[in-house]
Amino acid sequence: MGWIKIIEHVRPKLKDPILIQGLPGLGLVGKLAVDYIIEELKPTKIAELYSDYLFLPDGRSGILVSFEGVGYLPRYEFYAYTNPKGPNDIILLAGDTQPVTWAQYTIAEKVLEYVKQYDVKMIITLGGILTRVAGKQVFAVATDEKLLKQLEAYGVKPSRGGAVTGACGIMIGLAKLYGIDGISLMGSVGEIYPDPEAAKAVLEVLIKAFKIPLSLERLDKIIKDMKTKAAIARKLKEYARMLSEERKGKEKKELPGFYV
Amino acid sequence: MGWIKIIEHVRPKLKDPILIQGLPGLGLVGKLAVDYIIEELKPTKIAELYSDYLFLPDGRSGILVSFEGVGYLPRYEFYAYTNPKGPNDIILLAGDTQPVTWAQYTIAEKVLEYVKQYDVKMIITLGGILTRVAGKQVFAVATDEKLLKQLEAYGVKPSRGGAVTGACGIMIGLAKLYGIDGISLMGSVGEIYPDPEAAKAVLEVLIKAFKIPLSLERLDKIIKDMKTKAAIARKLKEYARMLSEERKGKEKKELPGFYV
Amino acid sequence: MGWIKIIEHVRPKLKDPILIQGLPGLGLVGKLAVDYIIEELKPTKIAELYSDYLFLPDGRSGILVSFEGVGYLPRYEFYAYTNPKGPNDIILLAGDTQPVTWAQYTIAEKVLEYVKQYDVKMIITLGGILTRVAGKQVFAVATDEKLLKQLEAYGVKPSRGGAVTGACGIMIGLAKLYGIDGISLMGSVGEIYPDPEAAKAVLEVLIKAFKIPLSLERLDKIIKDMKTKAAIARKLKEYARMLSEERKGKEKKELPGFYV
Amino acid sequence: MGWIKIIEHVRPKLKDPILIQGLPGLGLVGKLAVDYIIEELKPTKIAELYSDYLFLPDGRSGILVSFEGVGYLPRYEFYAYTNPKGPNDIILLAGDTQPVTWAQYTIAEKVLEYVKQYDVKMIITLGGILTRVAGKQVFAVATDEKLLKQLEAYGVKPSRGGAVTGACGIMIGLAKLYGIDGISLMGSVGEIYPDPEAAKAVLEVLIKAFKIPLSLERLDKIIKDMKTKAAIARKLKEYARMLSEERKGKEKKELPGFYV
Repeated sequence: MGWIKIIEHVRPKLKDPILIQGLPGLGLVGKLAVDYIIEELKPTKIAELYSDYLFLPDGRSGILVSFEGVGYLPRYEFYAYTNPKGPNDIILLAGDTQPVTWAQYTIAEKVLEYVKQYDVKMIITLGGILTRVAGKQVFAVATDEKLLKQLEAYGVKPSRGGAVTGACGIMIGLAKLYGIDGISLMGSVGEIYPDPEAAKAVLEVLIKAFKIPLSLERLDKIIKDMKTKAAIARKLKEYARMLSEERKGKEKKELPGFYV
Repeated sequence: MGWIKIIEHVRPKLKDPILIQGLPGLGLVGKLAVDYIIEELKPTKIAELYSDYLFLPDGRSGILVSFEGVGYLPRYEFYAYTNPKGPNDIILLAGDTQPVTWAQYTIAEKVLEYVKQYDVKMIITLGGILTRVAGKQVFAVATDEKLLKQLEAYGVKPSRGGAVTGACGIMIGLAKLYGIDGISLMGSVGEIYPDPEAAKAVLEVLIKAFKIPLSLERLDKIIKDMKTKAAIARKLKEYARMLSEERKGKEKKELPGFYV
Repeated sequence: MGWIKIIEHVRPKLKDPILIQGLPGLGLVGKLAVDYIIEELKPTKIAELYSDYLFLPDGRSGILVSFEGVGYLPRYEFYAYTNPKGPNDIILLAGDTQPVTWAQYTIAEKVLEYVKQYDVKMIITLGGILTRVAGKQVFAVATDEKLLKQLEAYGVKPSRGGAVTGACGIMIGLAKLYGIDGISLMGSVGEIYPDPEAAKAVLEVLIKAFKIPLSLERLDKIIKDMKTKAAIARKLKEYARMLSEERKGKEKKELPGFYV
Repeated sequence: MGWIKIIEHVRPKLKDPILIQGLPGLGLVGKLAVDYIIEELKPTKIAELYSDYLFLPDGRSGILVSFEGVGYLPRYEFYAYTNPKGPNDIILLAGDTQPVTWAQYTIAEKVLEYVKQYDVKMIITLGGILTRVAGKQVFAVATDEKLLKQLEAYGVKPSRGGAVTGACGIMIGLAKLYGIDGISLMGSVGEIYPDPEAAKAVLEVLIKAFKIPLSLERLDKIIKDMKTKAAIARKLKEYARMLSEERKGKEKKELPGFYV
């Protein structure tokens, strides 16, 4: 226990880089947003982090399996994006899973130590937030009131009171102790899970704030597609509920290639 | 895992100091009492302790968020109060949360090591205790029968048998091994949660025993206020129960800015 | 986490000593037996072991409180008994609680290291075992078949298959790796909990095997007394069930001085 | 916590050895398969691994007890088989239990370090997989697509997507980071638990792939025998359900010598 390994592939020169983290969490908002940036902007993969603190999303330890049948340990992946339009280059942190509760600090600190060599001055963690607001709204928690003021220009409201749990919160909490500015940007989460619309709202803030030349066109298609799928899923669910109880118990054995 | 960091701000000269600890626990008695002393006497903050053993009160790891939207890691705060009236200066230990079960000793020992430089000879932990006694009564558990005898002068009764769980107990249990006197002062907890009346009972003992020039006037107002609020809350609860079941399930999404 | 401290009081010369361990477990058999030997033979206390792996019996961390109101951390206590009648002196290991599951090896190994200085050649752990046998029977698991054969002379039967969980099993499992003979002596547990009759059965084997000049007279009185109390308790329970539901919920607040 | 001990008995010369691991898991497939190879080919026991990360299968710590009444700590056992017919000698890893979730990496890495001295180039872990396929099918997850292609010759299909949990997955996930090829061979699991037919399917692949002179005759008898027993067990179960409710509660005390 306590096994952490960073495999560094390259160490590029980066201009005043910020770190943007998007891990699985509420509404998958952070993961959807960062994975989308990676797919669109095709940044360079610079490092991977492996750890026995990275359990599978279901809380067990094991390996994930690609559609081809290739297995790999859950991991963090670091990408570097050289932004031709904005003042800051960007280090992206994507991952399969969050660290287990009692190792959140340890992993966050390992990340802080790794990005220190790039002299990162700001860390932005992306996540979702449960609210009753209508439409899509982005809320923020920051290490400093000044940062919240700056975010107002992009329509971002402070999230007042309560807590930000998991890697989304711990990373900026620790950043503060390291003298690094930190912001949690959280898209309000609605009915659909995962929620690409909340991811879009968060991305729109990032695009404006850091002048990222990112097109959201494909994301709009994904949103449309998911809405259709969600509608179909709802109908199938209703239909399924109408089927006889005979099916019960059989469902566990449904998919070949799933949990062993 | 196992990350503990003490940030020391100042190291004042203190006259035969005692340590008074008030952390969240039964009836919030300890936290209410120590936080009240801090608000009233405005002692100097001398240090902060951060640790990944300090989870959020709900057992998850994350950051707490101020009403302004500023996030911070759960922490212990140490304050020093120079008592002009009494023989002992006072180090106050306040906190957002208790350490996770399996790290109670580790954190308590860290605190003992930190206060050792002030040559602390006595540690008092404040808490609540569930009893059926009428009115407010203060019970004590101590590292020595002699201490219990001395407390009788202030109307404090020994708590006989059983256990004192959490930081309230562990801190004095360890103090004994360090050759430091320890007392757990516990206010009997009644119907209202949190219970400022139990906190008041405990504070009255401290005021007398250590000649602390602390006015309880504002606390009396808080008690009155909470009683009114509790009465209102009870009525609202009854009313709520009368409302249709339709509301069920919606309640989880109530507050913007809460758990992410 | 991982805090273990042995406080040694004296280091007597002992003649071919064996270690007898009696910790809380099924039917409290082991604890009742070893505590009874200590009360009767009044051996010398030679050491105490403290550890944050010793939680309270309810799984929380905290201190235990004596009837006088004095608090103390859960602990192991070691006693040395010089046996004038038998070939072996005896080290007795009594305790308030068992180590938490994942620290059973660590604590057992600490005990093995501590008793190594006395050149202990045999370790006997006492416990209870659930069976349907009529009357009181003592079963054994040992590190060697030869030991089981020797125990037959005292009416002890091997416990075949399954597992011996907790400190009762781990201690002899580790002893074997240390080249020390180990035996778990387990009294069959019946209706009453705790079960002093099972403790008596186990003590009778020890008395014969190691020629211990121990009178069981007082234990017989305890058994008689508990049987009466159990009978009374059963009647009170029936009576209580007949009382109105109004009492429900109030019971938790019954005893002053219990859990805080 | 964190106690790991490898006891090495002999260190034979081995020809291009592969490691085959079979631990308890879904359908007991891996354990049945490797234990069968050991019973049939009678390889040399070369080492044992003990650890406090190896809990009993029920999640508690303790010792296992043989039918003779001899207790022993849960362990891994390593055997070496010199294959006269095939290009690779074989190290077999059998065990009583899987490591606890949060120590899977630690134990797997200890095994990797131990077998490194034999210059192992491939690790095969055996397990079960829940599917709805008819008949017995073997699925595989590998560290490389190339390996999956090679397995097609033996009728093995890739297991696409999802996860492989526990030691079966972690071992090959870590092997990859060590530059060692890894394959999880998983027999589809049907109605009977444990499932010797799935173990047979997996063994047939191993026999062909590594030219192991292993007869499956006795396994066929076991399968036949288990099917009969399963049929009897089903009937007994139906019968038991018909018996009066009076028996309830008594069943826990059924077997002498079981859990203490």
